[in-house]
Amino acid sequence: MSAEEEKEFVVTPWEVSGIVDYDKLIQEFGTEQISDELYARLERDAKGSHHMLRRRVFFSHRDLNQVLDDYESGKGFFLYTGRGPSGRMHIGHIVAFYFTKWLQDRFKVNLYIQITDDEKFLEERRNLTLEDAHKWSLDNILDIIAVGFDPDRTFIFRDTEFMGRMYNMAIKIARRINYSTVKAVFGFNLQTNIGMLFYPAVQIVPTMLERKRCLIPAAIDQDPYWRVQRDVAEGMGYYKTAAIHSKFIPPLIGFQGKMSTSRPETAIYLDDEPKIVAEKIYKYAFSGGQATIELHRKLGGNPDVDVPFQWLYMFLEEDDSKIEGIAERYRRGELLTGELKEIFIEKLNQFLEKQRQRKDAARDKTKLYMR
Amino acid sequence: MSAEEEKEFVVTPWEVSGIVDYDKLIQEFGTEQISDELYARLERDAKGSHHMLRRRVFFSHRDLNQVLDDYESGKGFFLYTGRGPSGRMHIGHIVAFYFTKWLQDRFKVNLYIQITDDEKFLEERRNLTLEDAHKWSLDNILDIIAVGFDPDRTFIFRDTEFMGRMYNMAIKIARRINYSTVKAVFGFNLQTNIGMLFYPAVQIVPTMLERKRCLIPAAIDQDPYWRVQRDVAEGMGYYKTAAIHSKFIPPLIGFQGKMSTSRPETAIYLDDEPKIVAEKIYKYAFSGGQATIELHRKLGGNPDVDVPFQWLYMFLEEDDSKIEGIAERYRRGELLTGELKEIFIEKLNQFLEKQRQRKDAARDKTKLYMR
Repeated sequence: MSAEEEKEFVVTPWEVSGIVDYDKLIQEFGTEQISDELYARLERDAKGSHHMLRRRVFFSHRDLNQVLDDYESGKGFFLYTGRGPSGRMHIGHIVAFYFTKWLQDRFKVNLYIQITDDEKFLEERRNLTLEDAHKWSLDNILDIIAVGFDPDRTFIFRDTEFMGRMYNMAIKIARRINYSTVKAVFGFNLQTNIGMLFYPAVQIVPTMLERKRCLIPAAIDQDPYWRVQRDVAEGMGYYKTAAIHSKFIPPLIGFQGKMSTSRPETAIYLDDEPKIVAEKIYKYAFSGGQATIELHRKLGGNPDVDVPFQWLYMFLEEDDSKIEGIAERYRRGELLTGELKEIFIEKLNQFLEKQRQRKDAARDKTKLYMR
Repeated sequence: MSAEEEKEFVVTPWEVSGIVDYDKLIQEFGTEQISDELYARLERDAKGSHHMLRRRVFFSHRDLNQVLDDYESGKGFFLYTGRGPSGRMHIGHIVAFYFTKWLQDRFKVNLYIQITDDEKFLEERRNLTLEDAHKWSLDNILDIIAVGFDPDRTFIFRDTEFMGRMYNMAIKIARRINYSTVKAVFGFNLQTNIGMLFYPAVQIVPTMLERKRCLIPAAIDQDPYWRVQRDVAEGMGYYKTAAIHSKFIPPLIGFQGKMSTSRPETAIYLDDEPKIVAEKIYKYAFSGGQATIELHRKLGGNPDVDVPFQWLYMFLEEDDSKIEGIAERYRRGELLTGELKEIFIEKLNQFLEKQRQRKDAARDKTKLYMR
C-alpha cells in the first residue's frame, strides 16, 4: 500500500476503515472542533473535569455552546445515546457510556438510551435473526445498566418494544426525508432493504422526546444521523440536536479502523476473562516499543502509536500524573513494552472485573430503567 | 384526444385514470379472471349467491381456488381488507366492505380491517396532518362498523395505534424487500419519502396475522401490494395471500378513472343529504340516454355507459329481475333518463339513510371491534 493510499479512510455508521484523520473528518462531516475555550466552559459548568475531555478523546461537536447556554439560563437540556445490539459488547462500545454517565451526574439531566435491535436485524451483512437481536439487547442492557446511570433520570428502551410510542414521531420525521437524502448521506442503493431506508427516522426520534435541546455523546461515526436530524428538526418545532463526538478507541492490533465484533483479535470484550485478556494483549496488542530491549533502552518507545498506552490514555487511567509518568518513562526507554503491557493488563482486568460485578447486580435493576 | 390515447389507462394504489380495460389489467398485474366454474364453486361453498359475483363486479383473483380448498378441507382461511382514511367515505369506498361482510357471514371467518392512517399522512400530495388522518380514521371506522360485521370475528385497527404489535413483523417483511422492488412495483423515485418506502411492509403485515391463508376482497388497484407479499411470504413461513378483486364503481361523471375525494362532482359521499344526492345526480350523472325524448323513445338508451344504471347494477339493486327489467325498458326506450335517475336517487338515498342510521348506532360499538 502506498503512502497515498494509506491516508484514505472511511467513516460511516456501518464501517470504519483506514487510519482516521480526525481533522479531515471534521471538515467532511461539517462538525466543529471543540476549542480550548469551549472545553473550559464545559468543565466550568460541570463543576469538574473529565480525563476524556482533558485528553481530547471527545474532540468535535455540534452546538455544544448552545447546550451550555440553555443550561446556564436554566432552560436545561437532555442526553441521548444508544447501542446497536449485534453481539457481546467490547471496550470500544462502553467508553462513551461512562462519559455519558459523567455528564448526567454533573448536569443532573434526563438520559434516553436507544437499543437499536431493529437496525441490527435489518443490517443484512450481520445475518442476525430478530430473536438474536433481542437476546443481545437483553445482555447489552445489563452492561449498560452496570455503568451506573441515575435510575430516576434514565430510560432505556428497545426499538421493537417502544415502537408503539415512537411510530407517530418516526413517520413525521420520515415524511421530511426522501430517498435522495438517505442515498447521499448513508450510501443506500437499489439493493438496500426498505427497513433500512426507513431506519434513520427511527434513530432520530429520541432527539425529539423532549422540547429541550438534545445532546448526544457518541463516537463520530453516528454523526450522519444527526446531520439529517438537523435538516428536519426546526421545521417540526424541535431543536436541532447537539452532539459531542469521540474518537475511536483503536483496535488492539493497531490504528486501522475500529474494534470489530466480527474480528475478536481487534477487541477486548467486557466478558473476556483475565487470562484471555492477558493472552490477547501479549499476542495482538500493537506496540510502539523497539524491536529489542537494547534498542528500546537506547531509542525509547512511541506512546502515540502504542495501543496499550492509548487505551490507558484515552480511557482506563484517569490520573493525569500517572499517565504522564508512564508516557515519559516509555519515551525514555525506562519502561519496556512488556512492562507497559503488564500495567495495561492489570488496569484493564480491574476495570472488567468491576464491570462484571456491576453487570451481575444489574439483573435486578432492569425495571428501574425500562419503565 | 385521439382514439389511441383514450385507450390508455393507469391503475396504481394512488391513481386510477383513463378508461380501465380490465382484461388488459389482469394481464398487466398477472392475476386471473374468475372462471364460471370458480364462481359456481364459491357460491356452492358459500351456500348462497351475491349479486356482485353474479354480475362480475368481483372479476379477478389470486389463489381463490386454494382458499376454497382450505375451506373445504376444514383448514379454514381469514379475511383482510382496509381503508385509507384521507377524508369522508364515498360509495366507491364502502362497496367492498359490504361484499366482505357477505363473505364473513357465509364462511364464518375472522376479518382484519386495517386503517392506514400512516400511509395517508405520508402521501405528500394529500397534505394531511397526522391529526387529520386520525380524525378521519375515527369517522371512517364508524362507517365501516355500520356495515355490520360480526363483532366476535372482526378486528379493526389503525396502523399508528397498532404499530407496537406490528413492527416486528413489518421489519421482517421489510428486510426482504429492497428499493429496486418498490421502485419497480410502486413507481417510487428519488423524491419519495422514506416513510412511503417502508409502508408496503406495513400493508403486508395483516396477511400474516394468522397461519392460515388470507383472502383479501378489495378493488384491484391494491393488488401491487399483494404481488410483493406473494414474493416474500413463503420464505417467511406464511401463505402467499389470496385476493378477490373488484372493478371500480365508475365516477358519477363517467367511466374515466375512479371516484375521487378531491373531486366532489365524481362521487356521492356517505353523508351526502338526500337533496344534495338528487342535485348531484341530475347535474353530473353521466347518462346513456339519447339527447331528446323523441330520439330516446326511438333509439333507446345504453345502460352499459349509463352511470345511474351501472351503480344500480354493480351495487345498489340486488334483485336480478328488477335490474334486468330496468335494463330492458331502458334499452327499448320505455324508461327515460330522468325516470332512471329517479329510480336511482330513491334507491341510493334509501341506502344512505340506512348507512347513516347504522353509523349513528356504531358510536357505541367501537370497543367491540377495536379490542
